[in-house]
Amino acid sequence: MSTAAGSRSVGLVKPQVAHFDEPLLLACGRSLPDYELVYETYGELNPERSNAVLVCHALSGHHHAAGYHTAQDKKPGWWDECIGPGKPIDTDRFFVVSLNNIGGCHGSTGPSSINPATGRPWGPDFPSLRARDWVNSQARLADRLGIGCWAAVIGGSLGGMQAMRWSLEYPERVKHCIVIAAAMKLSAQNLAFNEVARQAIVSDPGFAGGHYLERGTVPAQGLALARMVGHITYLSDGAMASKFGRDLRRGTLEQGDDGNVEFQVQSYLRYQGSQFSGNFDANTYILMTRALDYFDLAREYDNDPVAAFTHARCNFLVVSFSTDWRFSPQRSREIVDALIAADRPVTYAEIEADEGHDAFLLPIPRYLDVFRAYMLRVGADV
Amino acid sequence: MSTAAGSRSVGLVKPQVAHFDEPLLLACGRSLPDYELVYETYGELNPERSNAVLVCHALSGHHHAAGYHTAQDKKPGWWDECIGPGKPIDTDRFFVVSLNNIGGCHGSTGPSSINPATGRPWGPDFPSLRARDWVNSQARLADRLGIGCWAAVIGGSLGGMQAMRWSLEYPERVKHCIVIAAAMKLSAQNLAFNEVARQAIVSDPGFAGGHYLERGTVPAQGLALARMVGHITYLSDGAMASKFGRDLRRGTLEQGDDGNVEFQVQSYLRYQGSQFSGNFDANTYILMTRALDYFDLAREYDNDPVAAFTHARCNFLVVSFSTDWRFSPQRSREIVDALIAADRPVTYAEIEADEGHDAFLLPIPRYLDVFRAYMLRVGADV
Repeated sequence: MSTAAGSRSVGLVKPQVAHFDEPLLLACGRSLPDYELVYETYGELNPERSNAVLVCHALSGHHHAAGYHTAQDKKPGWWDECIGPGKPIDTDRFFVVSLNNIGGCHGSTGPSSINPATGRPWGPDFPSLRARDWVNSQARLADRLGIGCWAAVIGGSLGGMQAMRWSLEYPERVKHCIVIAAAMKLSAQNLAFNEVARQAIVSDPGFAGGHYLERGTVPAQGLALARMVGHITYLSDGAMASKFGRDLRRGTLEQGDDGNVEFQVQSYLRYQGSQFSGNFDANTYILMTRALDYFDLAREYDNDPVAAFTHARCNFLVVSFSTDWRFSPQRSREIVDALIAADRPVTYAEIEADEGHDAFLLPIPRYLDVFRAYMLRVGADV
Repeated sequence: MSTAAGSRSVGLVKPQVAHFDEPLLLACGRSLPDYELVYETYGELNPERSNAVLVCHALSGHHHAAGYHTAQDKKPGWWDECIGPGKPIDTDRFFVVSLNNIGGCHGSTGPSSINPATGRPWGPDFPSLRARDWVNSQARLADRLGIGCWAAVIGGSLGGMQAMRWSLEYPERVKHCIVIAAAMKLSAQNLAFNEVARQAIVSDPGFAGGHYLERGTVPAQGLALARMVGHITYLSDGAMASKFGRDLRRGTLEQGDDGNVEFQVQSYLRYQGSQFSGNFDANTYILMTRALDYFDLAREYDNDPVAAFTHARCNFLVVSFSTDWRFSPQRSREIVDALIAADRPVTYAEIEADEGHDAFLLPIPRYLDVFRAYMLRVGADV
């Protein structure tokens, strides 16, 4: 925890756990008998309980979005650039709730949890989830915290999809919906990359059909490969070029060098992969990518996004990044077009940024300015 | 072999084998003691021996570029759209030579061949190769066939890189160089995808450190994954969207469906992967992707492509495809700019095509027209 970061940081934070005894009926038709959600909060809930903001996480995210767990932590939460005193999601104004979704692997009930029916980890038998299941479980957390209506539901990537689903499922409980670097559904290319990632995991012998916890194995190589593939899609071609180019970490490209060459980008990817495989659960990764695949905002509205968004009652901010090729600006413009056609108030910003999809996590000045300005408007509605 | 295809096909063809006793000194500093090249020829060499054209193959290609091996073959050679009577590479005019490169797995000496020093398959001990090694071995094949100067050296993707290397290494032996969907060097993103492919292979337990032939195992899952990743990069986002969209092969996306969903694009990729893993050698795939990684046209010319191309003496045709994101039109324009600055005659065509990198294999009318027109010019120089 650095002093510089600390000066605009929410500081030390402590995760909390909410236990829910009532079964949660899931979109797949099964029920989760009981479950726990781990979450953090930043800032203070006002007496009117009207300044609460929900932050939804992306594929590999979790509840720890801002601040530090210990004074020794080197890195803050994953969205510390955007959450804190004076930051776009200003904790001097808002009460921020950030949770780990069910199915996750950071403390909320998921495939690594014990299935009460068997006394063993759920593993691959954990129910299939959709974004709406997360939204429903988040609504129960809101009930528990006494939050009738969110000042804003906010998310990037898969988090943005949850925010959109909130606007349709609980229109009376959302005043503003902030959708960053997202899409109304995955393209065939998106689906293809997810499939490669899952195949890498399930074909790792350590996966053991998903029963690796009981077997004491770890599908580390498969998870690492999945992360490497994902990571390439999070960065733009240009960002990789300026970050690594063709720089060598080992060997030379001279004639006479017998192939002992390693490029910087190779070792970087391998490092990212191995870090991830030590910290993430394989069944969760499969479950989360499937939820992404299945997400289709307008499917149950006759595949008409305009018809879908007529159910929303909130204001929208949509943000995209110029070099994002996972969910390109075109995908955000589709959201904006549908919102306009549905006569919903929408603000749209396409941010020039070299960093690709990852830009939504980074302190890009115009992005932070747009985000901050919109959040001032959210604050005025509180 | 269909009648329709047969009418403009070179018909039945038979691979030939050339054995070379003299060791080939490789760029890595090692030598290949002796080696074989398997090749095919289409058309007739004219008495002046001036109408010979060399076709260089890409990553997973081989010598069988046109025609059929048996009357029962369902598919012709990989570039049958472009090679044959009346086709762009017109076998009524040209004598076409197409070979499997050393290091390959379709008959030429490669990792699956027996290492004479050990009596066992070379496997992972096969020497590291560069594009220049292929060019040198191809020059020896030209000597064997009595071809002093190629009317044209032609290739797509990695084949185009070999064609460019020919123009610099043997300037007096190439009259025209045709470079399709290629680049002067790989980008960091290109390198990254190759790294994922290799990691998928080497982390497959069946790979056994590359000694799978001796162990009787096959790294089928790793090869399949490598191919799946590659395949995504060969197709454009738009091509995948129009070919598969979000069509389902199994299950539904309705609520109540318990996750037994399969998208068409998933099963397509899995099929492509498993087909490939039954037909391709893992060590060859690693070796070929490394040769791609190491290729850097201008490295030994002070990293100045203009200085490099001043060594060329031939005319150039450069072709790119609008939706190719593996080697985008920008990468071809870099080649063209360097050629112009080096005062080399160059024709450039950027073809509008939805099919991405794979477009270079497909019968896109304007592409075939440009290719045919340029080859008429090549023929006029014979």
